[in-house]
Amino acid sequence: MHDIEALVRQMSLEEKAALCSGATPWTTKPLARLGVDSITVSDGPHGLRRPIEQADMIGRSIPATCFPTASALACSWDRDLLREVGEALGVEARALGVHVLLAPGVNMKRTPLCGRNFEYYSEDPYLAGELASAYVEGVQSTGVGTCLKHFAANNQESERLSISAEIPERVLREIYLAAFERVVTQARPWSVMCSYNRINGTYASQHRHLLTEILRDEWGFEGAVISDWGAVDDRVAGIEAGLDLEMPGPSPCNDRRIVEAVRSGRLDEQALDRAVTRILALVERALAQPGARDPARGLQAPEVEAHHRLARRAAARCMVLLKNDGGVLPLDPARLRSVAVLGHMAVAPQFQGGGSSRVQPTRVDVPLDELRAAAGSVALTYYQGYLESGEPDDALLRSAARAAEAADAALIFAGLPDGVESEGYDRLDMELPPGHVALIQAVAAVQPRTVVVLHNGAPVSMAGWIDRVPAVLLAGLAGQASGGAVADILFGRVNPSGKLAETYPVRLEDNPSYLNFPGENGKVFYGEGLFIGYRYYEARGVQPLFPFGHGLSYTTFSYGQASLSRPSIAPGDSLEVQVPVTNTGSRDGEEIVQLYVRPHRSQLPRPVKELKGFARVALAPGETRPASFRLTIRDFSYYDPERGGWVAEPGTYDLLIGASSQDIRVQATVVLTGGVLADTRLTAESSIQAWLDDPRGREALERFVPDEVMRRYREQPAVMRRVLRNYPLKKLPHVTGGRVDEATVQHILQSVTR
Amino acid sequence: MHDIEALVRQMSLEEKAALCSGATPWTTKPLARLGVDSITVSDGPHGLRRPIEQADMIGRSIPATCFPTASALACSWDRDLLREVGEALGVEARALGVHVLLAPGVNMKRTPLCGRNFEYYSEDPYLAGELASAYVEGVQSTGVGTCLKHFAANNQESERLSISAEIPERVLREIYLAAFERVVTQARPWSVMCSYNRINGTYASQHRHLLTEILRDEWGFEGAVISDWGAVDDRVAGIEAGLDLEMPGPSPCNDRRIVEAVRSGRLDEQALDRAVTRILALVERALAQPGARDPARGLQAPEVEAHHRLARRAAARCMVLLKNDGGVLPLDPARLRSVAVLGHMAVAPQFQGGGSSRVQPTRVDVPLDELRAAAGSVALTYYQGYLESGEPDDALLRSAARAAEAADAALIFAGLPDGVESEGYDRLDMELPPGHVALIQAVAAVQPRTVVVLHNGAPVSMAGWIDRVPAVLLAGLAGQASGGAVADILFGRVNPSGKLAETYPVRLEDNPSYLNFPGENGKVFYGEGLFIGYRYYEARGVQPLFPFGHGLSYTTFSYGQASLSRPSIAPGDSLEVQVPVTNTGSRDGEEIVQLYVRPHRSQLPRPVKELKGFARVALAPGETRPASFRLTIRDFSYYDPERGGWVAEPGTYDLLIGASSQDIRVQATVVLTGGVLADTRLTAESSIQAWLDDPRGREALERFVPDEVMRRYREQPAVMRRVLRNYPLKKLPHVTGGRVDEATVQHILQSVTR
Repeated sequence: MHDIEALVRQMSLEEKAALCSGATPWTTKPLARLGVDSITVSDGPHGLRRPIEQADMIGRSIPATCFPTASALACSWDRDLLREVGEALGVEARALGVHVLLAPGVNMKRTPLCGRNFEYYSEDPYLAGELASAYVEGVQSTGVGTCLKHFAANNQESERLSISAEIPERVLREIYLAAFERVVTQARPWSVMCSYNRINGTYASQHRHLLTEILRDEWGFEGAVISDWGAVDDRVAGIEAGLDLEMPGPSPCNDRRIVEAVRSGRLDEQALDRAVTRILALVERALAQPGARDPARGLQAPEVEAHHRLARRAAARCMVLLKNDGGVLPLDPARLRSVAVLGHMAVAPQFQGGGSSRVQPTRVDVPLDELRAAAGSVALTYYQGYLESGEPDDALLRSAARAAEAADAALIFAGLPDGVESEGYDRLDMELPPGHVALIQAVAAVQPRTVVVLHNGAPVSMAGWIDRVPAVLLAGLAGQASGGAVADILFGRVNPSGKLAETYPVRLEDNPSYLNFPGENGKVFYGEGLFIGYRYYEARGVQPLFPFGHGLSYTTFSYGQASLSRPSIAPGDSLEVQVPVTNTGSRDGEEIVQLYVRPHRSQLPRPVKELKGFARVALAPGETRPASFRLTIRDFSYYDPERGGWVAEPGTYDLLIGASSQDIRVQATVVLTGGVLADTRLTAESSIQAWLDDPRGREALERFVPDEVMRRYREQPAVMRRVLRNYPLKKLPHVTGGRVDEATVQHILQSVTR
Repeated sequence: MHDIEALVRQMSLEEKAALCSGATPWTTKPLARLGVDSITVSDGPHGLRRPIEQADMIGRSIPATCFPTASALACSWDRDLLREVGEALGVEARALGVHVLLAPGVNMKRTPLCGRNFEYYSEDPYLAGELASAYVEGVQSTGVGTCLKHFAANNQESERLSISAEIPERVLREIYLAAFERVVTQARPWSVMCSYNRINGTYASQHRHLLTEILRDEWGFEGAVISDWGAVDDRVAGIEAGLDLEMPGPSPCNDRRIVEAVRSGRLDEQALDRAVTRILALVERALAQPGARDPARGLQAPEVEAHHRLARRAAARCMVLLKNDGGVLPLDPARLRSVAVLGHMAVAPQFQGGGSSRVQPTRVDVPLDELRAAAGSVALTYYQGYLESGEPDDALLRSAARAAEAADAALIFAGLPDGVESEGYDRLDMELPPGHVALIQAVAAVQPRTVVVLHNGAPVSMAGWIDRVPAVLLAGLAGQASGGAVADILFGRVNPSGKLAETYPVRLEDNPSYLNFPGENGKVFYGEGLFIGYRYYEARGVQPLFPFGHGLSYTTFSYGQASLSRPSIAPGDSLEVQVPVTNTGSRDGEEIVQLYVRPHRSQLPRPVKELKGFARVALAPGETRPASFRLTIRDFSYYDPERGGWVAEPGTYDLLIGASSQDIRVQATVVLTGGVLADTRLTAESSIQAWLDDPRGREALERFVPDEVMRRYREQPAVMRRVLRNYPLKKLPHVTGGRVDEATVQHILQSVTR
């Protein structure tokens, strides 16, 4: 291993600059003179997309296991599973000669329309951060690095290379950066990828506040920052801001600009040295891992087998049983003679999205085949139902409906066809293809035991049919083995246990970003502020189609009383919460138990409640086991932009524990002590109300305002007190007729700023 | 009349500065040495609040006619009525020695909770602007001036003296400034009052962009700007920004600061001279009017009588029949033996709000007395129903319900008690007092012919009872004669014709400003952007309780086909639209016909439709008359922030004509020609999509990009074209593999900026 400091000292200016961009689209530059080798990176997140030709940006890639996409994996709420998938991805990366996997992506799902939502986890930063941390730990445990992306606020594909996401600091911190913060501090990814877009006017690739002040100075990130492919705007500004490696390479023009900027004095060479040091550290670290210098050996048959089995197990844990009226599912081969399997997606399954994450799968489970294998003596008949494009076709529709009517039950495979969900552009609406909708409606009209299996990576509208079908399984984009997983769940070999990692709204218009998406004139205002996802639907009382955290099982669970390790929590404490959960049904099952924190009051507005814990509990029938959570002061905190930090206000908080964000089963209360209040603006402009609300402010007023004035104020009628309280402090001389003078106002101000 | 220029030249610096604040809370400073007299101003808007003691800010005032509040008058949609009320106010002002009436207020109703909503007209800037223009014309026709207020964006009382309304320029122009623009350019008020709050960080009282660049330079305002009472922050900055007169006076400290600023060179004396010139011009103009120098004579009995009659007629035209199932109303004395009149507001009517607009009425119509006078042989029994505070009382409730059950019909007077709606603070919720709700529910349970009469100046929730009562009359805060007007309408002497000037939402949570009100840390983000009021409910498909423009009549109307004076419109044109309306019922009635413009497409997002015309048509049974509208190019325009001006895009527009925003009866189409497209950002950052969408952009691309590249682009699959179109222009070298070079990008850019 090299002494990197010494290495940098030996490099010429030109060599340093050259190292700051790749050699090819997927490799770093070697520096033979000093013995520095090159490393290879490759797209993820749910599988390796290692181009056959290293120079290819988007050409054919080497087959690899296509695991469930992030949007699917998130529905597992299963840290262990994410770690296991991460490990498998690390093994495949190593086998394909890849040193750093360009994953995971933890951007927030601000709109159901974002083309890349299937690559992301959730609308909730805690859930996304926890799952992505496990994924990073899994990958990196194999000696392969990760690259946490896309930092930050790349929440839409529309004009993604130039749009400015206009987001207040508090909203950034609590929503759009929080998952990144969790992964960086918890799992320590080797690298971070900056996003294409601008944030409050500045490109992420040259955003010093993000790349240096927050990422490194605050969160302690020590790895390298890599540009998204083509995200560099001003390369020199990027070096200054903390962007280390430009990709794809080579980028001779920008290398030259760096050299010129150092020569002309515009760029401090120390900034360049820092970038070079971090790139070298990444390369050295990657190549120091066991097997990192071995030639790519390719995936071996046993790995292919084992990983396909993992992909199937993972897929089954991701799928969400959205609806199951009258126990239509699981299908019981003993009680069914025939089942109609309908829809082209039953033979051509949709299991991943488009763009750079597209994996060439090692094999693909065809749902119809897997169903046949699982169906035993049940006769399965397949009808296409709609055109491959998704458009309706009368003849296909009629024959499918006839088959459905004649069968004992119908399974309809529907979803978003290939090309609808993709990197590079956003969806235009939340609709399923008309042919799919027509098929569901036609079949539901003739077959009461109709089950819809949905393949989609983001919410779709079900307005036209959800009340007409008894059962819906969200199979999602669950990877190459999703066909097998669907068969496992439909026939009850696996009890479904996934829960939604994002809200399914009734209509697109209900989404909080609606009317503020995709922006105008190069800017998109995040007008909904903190209120994305369930935070919005709850606060505004808009009933979603299916709430965040929702998912059914073939068994049932009951919850006991919560026990807390302590009645109160203070900074530095850790609070353990346990809730016994019992399987009250007749099948083995797993329950995802969720814990939300609800403040009783707050100086700044806050969401009604926020997810701060979740646990998976596997239970045999009749068995009881505890769901356990651990909370720290941060779980009660919010970001105070005036203070520039997180605050946890003293006071009472509810812990809401339940089966979904809307299905709260147990409640407990904890008192937070020793916290701090937000640094609300106690300035001359702050209202007297704000001064009175703040302990420091109240003390100052009581100390400096003459007793007689305070007494007169308290003797005013309530409405007049309400009027007066809206005045800012500096108007005290005015509202007291001079009984409080300017000097007193200054004393009051100074007493809180000391 | 003085030569003002000469006057200013003769004034010392100290005299000029002194003139920039009042002599008392309600008068300007005289300057005896130069023969300059003082003028008197007084609060409005719906009556004169002339304090008995000139030095009193909020003491007792001289009796004057309390006309319907602005929120009520707006429901008349009656320009003639507003003009007539304005004339009457002018007469009263003159009689009380007032030269300038501090009215009207045209702020937008962003939230139902704004304490001062009753002083404002509408959630729609066109409606507010039209009605306020008529009011200003009416007042000023008498030689009394007006003061258009509160400029600008004073849309909440919470922290009103310091809150910063954070509003993008386009939203300011299209929503929050548009009514001001209309009144300034159309009716030429003598003065404008700046608001207390900040706009995008800068106090209105020192906001040069608003007070000078927009108000004077763009709109051509030539009058004086007066501070809201106590709104001055930095007096010197105010002079520079275009604030002329500080009120209340005197303000010796600030006068001194002006002198010092001029002496020290911080303030250009020319700026002070401009302010002094405008104040002198206002004083001279006011005193040059007939009778302006006569001593206050007080209101005479015939005026009191005539104005009370006008107030009653006006009130009846303002009231909105929200619901009238089964023709419960009008009450028919020939078919009723007894009616229970219930609720304390029947004897103590609520007819105005609190704060500076509070008028000491010349007399007050008591609803119960007026109903008795109108009821003929019908026996009326009165029961209080709830406590004066609005709280429920079991005994009062029971006796009222018993009376309702025994009677043939019940009238319940309900609303918001005194002190709930006031300047100085906002409401906390949209609820009626619990005693009122309990009374309505109890009575509705026993009396099917229950009519609710509501006294409120802003929307209230009706969730607990609206489905249980057949009829609701929104009497609003309709001034001192509202009791008589209610009787006129309930007994059918007057056919109700008012329509809602704002949406009544089902719940507060449905309001667009919810979650962005009243702000945090001294700022309130207008996150809903353009989408306030019906613009929001329509765009998001949120069904309101009663939509904007809704109101019923005792007769019915049918609409014929629209005729247009021309099939297309171009800049400079005027388009006349006529729709014949027929009274198809059996009573005289008036219909308010509304015209909305709906663009087929637009470069920037726009509301679904916007009000651009309205007309009142009075019709005898069977009679047909046209509703007439006149549209100009501005009615099709929106504000383009990149261009810094209004643009009307060529294309097709629907004219939607109907009885409410949701009850569109007739549709026509007009083609706009010769307009201009928005100056969409055609920069290096603009997406290729944006370049292709713009005619100039497309031309530039076709001219400079090699044919072969364009051909390759067109041959790409549709999804790849969607990806590529999201790239900004400057990435052309990157996405074309260098086939378009940097120089070509520069050529393209230069070709559109020439």
